[in-house]
Amino acid sequence: MTAPTPTDNTRIVLASRPEGTPTPDNFRLERAPLPEPGDGQVLLRNLWLSLDPYMRGRMNEGRSYAAPLAIGDTMEGGTVSQVVQSRHPRLSAGDIVLAHGGWQSFAVAEGDELRRTLDPQQAPVTTALGVHGMPGFTAYVGLSEIGKVQPGETLAVAAASGPVGATVGQIARLRGARTIGIAGGPRKVAHLRDELGFDIALDHRADDFADQLRAAAPDGIDVYYENVGGKVLDAVLPLLNDHARVPVCGLVAHYNDASLPPGPDRLSQLMGLILTRRLTVRGFIVGDKPYAHLYPDFVREMGDWLREGSVRYREDIVDGLENAPQGLIGLLRGDNFGKRLVRIAN
Amino acid sequence: MTAPTPTDNTRIVLASRPEGTPTPDNFRLERAPLPEPGDGQVLLRNLWLSLDPYMRGRMNEGRSYAAPLAIGDTMEGGTVSQVVQSRHPRLSAGDIVLAHGGWQSFAVAEGDELRRTLDPQQAPVTTALGVHGMPGFTAYVGLSEIGKVQPGETLAVAAASGPVGATVGQIARLRGARTIGIAGGPRKVAHLRDELGFDIALDHRADDFADQLRAAAPDGIDVYYENVGGKVLDAVLPLLNDHARVPVCGLVAHYNDASLPPGPDRLSQLMGLILTRRLTVRGFIVGDKPYAHLYPDFVREMGDWLREGSVRYREDIVDGLENAPQGLIGLLRGDNFGKRLVRIAN
Repeated sequence: MTAPTPTDNTRIVLASRPEGTPTPDNFRLERAPLPEPGDGQVLLRNLWLSLDPYMRGRMNEGRSYAAPLAIGDTMEGGTVSQVVQSRHPRLSAGDIVLAHGGWQSFAVAEGDELRRTLDPQQAPVTTALGVHGMPGFTAYVGLSEIGKVQPGETLAVAAASGPVGATVGQIARLRGARTIGIAGGPRKVAHLRDELGFDIALDHRADDFADQLRAAAPDGIDVYYENVGGKVLDAVLPLLNDHARVPVCGLVAHYNDASLPPGPDRLSQLMGLILTRRLTVRGFIVGDKPYAHLYPDFVREMGDWLREGSVRYREDIVDGLENAPQGLIGLLRGDNFGKRLVRIAN
Repeated sequence: MTAPTPTDNTRIVLASRPEGTPTPDNFRLERAPLPEPGDGQVLLRNLWLSLDPYMRGRMNEGRSYAAPLAIGDTMEGGTVSQVVQSRHPRLSAGDIVLAHGGWQSFAVAEGDELRRTLDPQQAPVTTALGVHGMPGFTAYVGLSEIGKVQPGETLAVAAASGPVGATVGQIARLRGARTIGIAGGPRKVAHLRDELGFDIALDHRADDFADQLRAAAPDGIDVYYENVGGKVLDAVLPLLNDHARVPVCGLVAHYNDASLPPGPDRLSQLMGLILTRRLTVRGFIVGDKPYAHLYPDFVREMGDWLREGSVRYREDIVDGLENAPQGLIGLLRGDNFGKRLVRIAN
């Protein structure tokens, strides 16, 4: 477990801003001196990097829910990291922690900000980046605070083999809902049905997808957990029941949009639907303060579900930091099958 | 106060469905025999009829938040009515009640469904159709349950000289918010500023309305109480702060739309804004069950505000049932200046 003493850092920076879909030349791999931890800080070796759709937004200029990266900044991201050198009283070399280490081999972090130390004996450490981490917590918060799914209700979720969607479906099932999972391609659809326990699994690539969805929801849809947008949303909207809830945590179908699609303009139609069906449509970011109080409950409850086997997960591993850009580009196309992680070091 | 014994009823029915803006020939005035109250029922003479934007939706075929009227049905509407004949133990001839008497001279109602008997000594009975009735309660519910406006926040509302908007602005001011009222034309704008106490009053007809609104909201908008849609919404959207709330109780700018406007299609843009700013956009209908428990509080609190003079209102009277169709057509254009009522009888 002890690593050789490192001598320099490798990192991937934002080289230029994408127009539409990112391309490899929007990223640049570079070497840099190893950062030195100050008082209260630790030097981390990043083992695993999480790839997530929100990273696309950080590459844009202008207002999003977080400040954009500057050109030349190291790409941000959650990591599972090992303490190499500690100047913090609570942390020791060898500890494995959940960090925001970014797209690089080594990082310096404030020890006080590393709130979760991971025990590989309890659970695979990678789950702290997926089902037992930010994506799983996103599922949990959206269902608990906004979706408020009730026994017997119908829930639909897209990207349902991904770490958020898969967790949404399984938590909703545990809470007694009828669940409709939507994904792209027959392998993912089979996984939803056979491994994740969705009541209905649909392929959004089918020509008659909207008809299939209508047939799958004879009593309408009470909760649509929105993480995709695009034609899945178009098919869901007419099926939403009175008082349906739509937690919005992502719109991955649109992150690469360079301009608005052609008309007609359906903005007033959406507002009309919100009015006549008394919908609640609410955006949320799991890192927002109002949800922090739920995190301990989530860690405990999800830990139980994982140990019991009542929530399952799947990982999709990209090997090597140098392959992170292609990993993110593919993720935005839906190429991943499960939670996408980059193995930076062993 | 005693009326001559009536011999027949006059009513206005839906003659045909409008395409776009209603025209007088969508309505028909007809005579009918006087209805007979059964056991537990009362015969009502309608004194005042409320005209409200929701009536436009009832004239359409197809799903809205209430079943549509059939061709030939009497137009629906809230009324202040006087009991002419009672077969209900609690009600007596001469009592003045809040009813859903519709566009007609006389109506039969279940006595048990007439929950508010009005005392003309306490307040003008017409307020039960406006500031102290459904429109006022709509304002109250939207602010209490969805808008949750806080002291120091900025609230914007359109149709702000109308009975909902005027009440929204005044309740928000009483709760410590900075209020921006929007209306059409200089008389209404002066009324917002001089009579209703809005901090800022703007005319949406001004060419530079969007710029004026931006200048009026240097700290952004925290609550946009939506009852209009259209270009006011377009101007508000870029100004909404993170975590802003948008209660949606009406979209009067769109009720006469026969088709969607041309593109580009801004549906995904609105969803993106809901996500990145973590907006809550929620439709509500004040008659929905979840709000019934607030009604007694509203009646009491608004009664106090009216007596103190801390909430004001304005009425806009149309004389004669036969003029109700033109009254509604004008209301949908924004011709009314205050709560529009039809005086059916004295």
